[in-house]
Amino acid sequence: MSSKLRGKGVIAGIAIAKALILEQDLEKYIALYTPGNAEAEIGKVKKAIGEVADILAENVKTLTDKNMSEQAGIMEAHRVMVQDPMFEDNAVAKAGELKSAPRAVLAASEESAAMFENMEDSYFRERAVDIRDVGKRVVRQILGLKGPDIGEEPVILCGHEIEPSVIANIPTEQIAGVLLGQGSTTCHAVIIAKARAIPTVVGLGDKLKEIKSGASLVINGETGEVYVAPTEQQLIAFNEQIKEQNRLKAHYAELTSLPAETTDGHKVMLVANISTHLDVEAAVSGFGAEGVGLFRSEFLFMGRSEAPDEEMQFQAYKEAVEKCKGQLCVIRTMDIGGDKPLPYLNIPKEDNPFLGWRALRICLARRDIFMPQVKAILRAGVYGKAAMMLPMVIRLSEVDKVKQIIEEAKVLLTQENKPYSNSVQLGIMVETPAAAVMSPIFAKHVDFFSIGTNDLIQYTLAVDRVNSNVSYLYDPFNPGVLALIKRTIDSANKNKIWAGMCGEMASDPCAAVLLMAMGITELSMSAPSIPRVKELIRKVSMVEAKKALDKVMSMEHAADIKEYLHEKFNDKK
Amino acid sequence: MSSKLRGKGVIAGIAIAKALILEQDLEKYIALYTPGNAEAEIGKVKKAIGEVADILAENVKTLTDKNMSEQAGIMEAHRVMVQDPMFEDNAVAKAGELKSAPRAVLAASEESAAMFENMEDSYFRERAVDIRDVGKRVVRQILGLKGPDIGEEPVILCGHEIEPSVIANIPTEQIAGVLLGQGSTTCHAVIIAKARAIPTVVGLGDKLKEIKSGASLVINGETGEVYVAPTEQQLIAFNEQIKEQNRLKAHYAELTSLPAETTDGHKVMLVANISTHLDVEAAVSGFGAEGVGLFRSEFLFMGRSEAPDEEMQFQAYKEAVEKCKGQLCVIRTMDIGGDKPLPYLNIPKEDNPFLGWRALRICLARRDIFMPQVKAILRAGVYGKAAMMLPMVIRLSEVDKVKQIIEEAKVLLTQENKPYSNSVQLGIMVETPAAAVMSPIFAKHVDFFSIGTNDLIQYTLAVDRVNSNVSYLYDPFNPGVLALIKRTIDSANKNKIWAGMCGEMASDPCAAVLLMAMGITELSMSAPSIPRVKELIRKVSMVEAKKALDKVMSMEHAADIKEYLHEKFNDKK
Repeated sequence: MSSKLRGKGVIAGIAIAKALILEQDLEKYIALYTPGNAEAEIGKVKKAIGEVADILAENVKTLTDKNMSEQAGIMEAHRVMVQDPMFEDNAVAKAGELKSAPRAVLAASEESAAMFENMEDSYFRERAVDIRDVGKRVVRQILGLKGPDIGEEPVILCGHEIEPSVIANIPTEQIAGVLLGQGSTTCHAVIIAKARAIPTVVGLGDKLKEIKSGASLVINGETGEVYVAPTEQQLIAFNEQIKEQNRLKAHYAELTSLPAETTDGHKVMLVANISTHLDVEAAVSGFGAEGVGLFRSEFLFMGRSEAPDEEMQFQAYKEAVEKCKGQLCVIRTMDIGGDKPLPYLNIPKEDNPFLGWRALRICLARRDIFMPQVKAILRAGVYGKAAMMLPMVIRLSEVDKVKQIIEEAKVLLTQENKPYSNSVQLGIMVETPAAAVMSPIFAKHVDFFSIGTNDLIQYTLAVDRVNSNVSYLYDPFNPGVLALIKRTIDSANKNKIWAGMCGEMASDPCAAVLLMAMGITELSMSAPSIPRVKELIRKVSMVEAKKALDKVMSMEHAADIKEYLHEKFNDKK
Repeated sequence: MSSKLRGKGVIAGIAIAKALILEQDLEKYIALYTPGNAEAEIGKVKKAIGEVADILAENVKTLTDKNMSEQAGIMEAHRVMVQDPMFEDNAVAKAGELKSAPRAVLAASEESAAMFENMEDSYFRERAVDIRDVGKRVVRQILGLKGPDIGEEPVILCGHEIEPSVIANIPTEQIAGVLLGQGSTTCHAVIIAKARAIPTVVGLGDKLKEIKSGASLVINGETGEVYVAPTEQQLIAFNEQIKEQNRLKAHYAELTSLPAETTDGHKVMLVANISTHLDVEAAVSGFGAEGVGLFRSEFLFMGRSEAPDEEMQFQAYKEAVEKCKGQLCVIRTMDIGGDKPLPYLNIPKEDNPFLGWRALRICLARRDIFMPQVKAILRAGVYGKAAMMLPMVIRLSEVDKVKQIIEEAKVLLTQENKPYSNSVQLGIMVETPAAAVMSPIFAKHVDFFSIGTNDLIQYTLAVDRVNSNVSYLYDPFNPGVLALIKRTIDSANKNKIWAGMCGEMASDPCAAVLLMAMGITELSMSAPSIPRVKELIRKVSMVEAKKALDKVMSMEHAADIKEYLHEKFNDKK
């Protein structure tokens, strides 16, 4: 009988396939396992850890070769976890006590996972899944178990949580969709699915138990709808939608090599937001990004017990800069605060971490953390066109101080005989109201602005964007927000520096047209959004965009502005 | 031997007098107490509670007659606490168990105090002191003990905490100063001392124990310095400082009846920020306030188990409006959020309460809470000149919704046959960057602006002003903040509505001159700050103020702005 469930759509697209339930009952196999003496079990733990590390290293290589950089990054993180000496020591000690290699490994990984799970920040809490995943892999290795058995036909992978390594190791063409019981939209399984554009629905909760392996499923990654055993008629309708979906995909692929240029010849740079140097190649060659507008360097700082050193950062920045092939690579300096407490930052508990000690404020107080980053960026500049971007700026003296630190870094690099670039651009994120209002001042002192709308909107409207009580107030089209953005772009143009945007607003095609009319030079977004934005820009003229802008700037209500833009531009898509 | 200690100065002024240690060892007296049977002890508890309630009611009357409204308010709160049926029931029950009236009262008040002490918000935590104070009063009543014995000479009251009732019941002329071991600057003892302008130093900690009753003391309420057994030379110097202090006080008193008018005839309204209707009279007659610029209605909402009803609010607003004697009384609608969780608001725990569900956002969602307030303000308008002011506005639709609620309130009041005013002004706090940037829009839809700098600065600079990690960044003279303030005042003047300010910035004389030059109509501040601001305004001309403003608006660094203003205006004081 056909039934309909509802979860939360996180990666758009429709998938029709049979369900494959991934909950593998390891306990059953462990119960059948006959352990040897302590020494034998310790040997098994060590052997399995080594083997899994080798397999993961091989995975990383294969995925990198295939340009599947995000997955490669996650598998590399797993490799580091499995080879973490603390994990191995703990598992070995437990093998001696428990006299069972699989139980020892499970207990050791559970201990590490529990530690992460107790952290306040959701980023770290979700890393608990990865640690358990690594532990189970080692146990499967000990038990000689294989991964899930996938046949010829692509399937929809179902599980309460799915271990990222499981998805990473199944070829994309064999995964039609992903369906999760848990509700996080930022867990690694989702990140991997997103990089592969696999339709995904999460948050199904206990309703997941209604689905059996082999059941016919349709999932809609936009609406979150899940159809179990769909009717013939439903299938026909969904197949039509999939056809349209594929047509659009092919169409977007055609756009990759075309410029983002209006019908009357005005060009905008469309560039990518990235989280690691591994993302650059897919963004540039896969989606036509004309460089990187935001390299979130903070990912280099997370999940570590101490700050990354100059050399490690240099390698990452160098690779990103090189892969931009002469196009600009904008590296944002560490942007972390009390909401993501890192052990080596020692941030005291704050009542309002979004208004607290974070980002540049920390960097200016912690030379030991900031100087290596500044030096690494200056060195990476030798390998292409690099820029350094400062987050959370609110006063000119902060820029002055950074300029002084840059000069000191150059002196140090000269002394250390390390080559560096003198042409690394210095810019600021305009993400506080102060920076936007003071943009006429800042424009005289920096090389560029990049408008960070996520924070700018948050502070301008006094709305925490991750607080569901007030998220209805979070609105990029609030006239106050638009006025601050326009002021920033005007200031840049008057002072002949360039202005870009790297907030989520840049990936909204209607907003992009408006920003272009304001005179923005560059829009930076997650790479898969580039074709949609490009498509609309290629269909409008600068003349009509400017007319729309004039109209919008005279309107008093965000709701009216959105309605107007929707009517004017949405049917162009 | 002379020695020097250091605490935190909270109320400026120098005091020279003998120490009076207030730590009264109640335990000693309780140990000497011979209890009767359960019934007798219960009788004693009830009798003492009734007597203390009567004494407190008498205190409230005397203090009110003397215009000491803030103290009266606190004593009234104590009266409510001692007559709280839960407290009495608990004390009576414990008297039955413990068979000791004093121990029963102490245990009952300790239980209530502990409940408050466990609350997250410091406002409520500090109320624990009041509850213990009330308990001890009842115990003293049972034991027949009197308050501290003060001779002819004024003394410096010393104690780790001092019960507010103790200070409230000693005539001002007998208290030279207050010295506390604990460090809070907002406990009731400090609030009472502030209302009486008694030099006060807090946060002395264990060093307080070095001071014995009768010791010679000098305290400096500005620097926090405390001299025990000062030398002859020190005394001569301090006496000179006190003379200067008294000269200034007399000088400020002369200013009370004079207008805040520049040498070239430009007038600014100086009005008062108040927390209860009891504060109005002292502000108007004591400090020359020309009305109330901010009535913080939220104090009516705090410390209660349910929202205050229309009638209770009406009485408070009516009295405040009447006492303004025809001058404007601006009532701010409830401005509370997740940092002061009230039981009946049900605000879920938020990661960043300053960016969360608060103030008008709550009111628009909770008609049951907001409608009684709107009705009460409209009714109070009949008794004078009232205004309604909305906090945390970020979009025009919020104002539209309030206007609709006002119309509905009028329909209800008509049906209920309650008179109301049709001329209550409606204005907004400009305290979010959005409101300041959108001021040209809002000015077309409201009767006035009042710039709330405390929050405006916080959001513009993304700096939580109560977070000591980042408080160094909190700066009213940040050029971005000044530009937003100027924009707001310009918008008001262009649209012929009035603009005021009710943040702490208004009480800085140099800032006041700058704001006046921008064209502000009204400055609202804590009443004791009015004379200082008035004095500077009466010494400058609008011409030189405008020249200074032009100069300031061309400067890039807050530090330079402050230095310039200090040099230009500070020696005028």
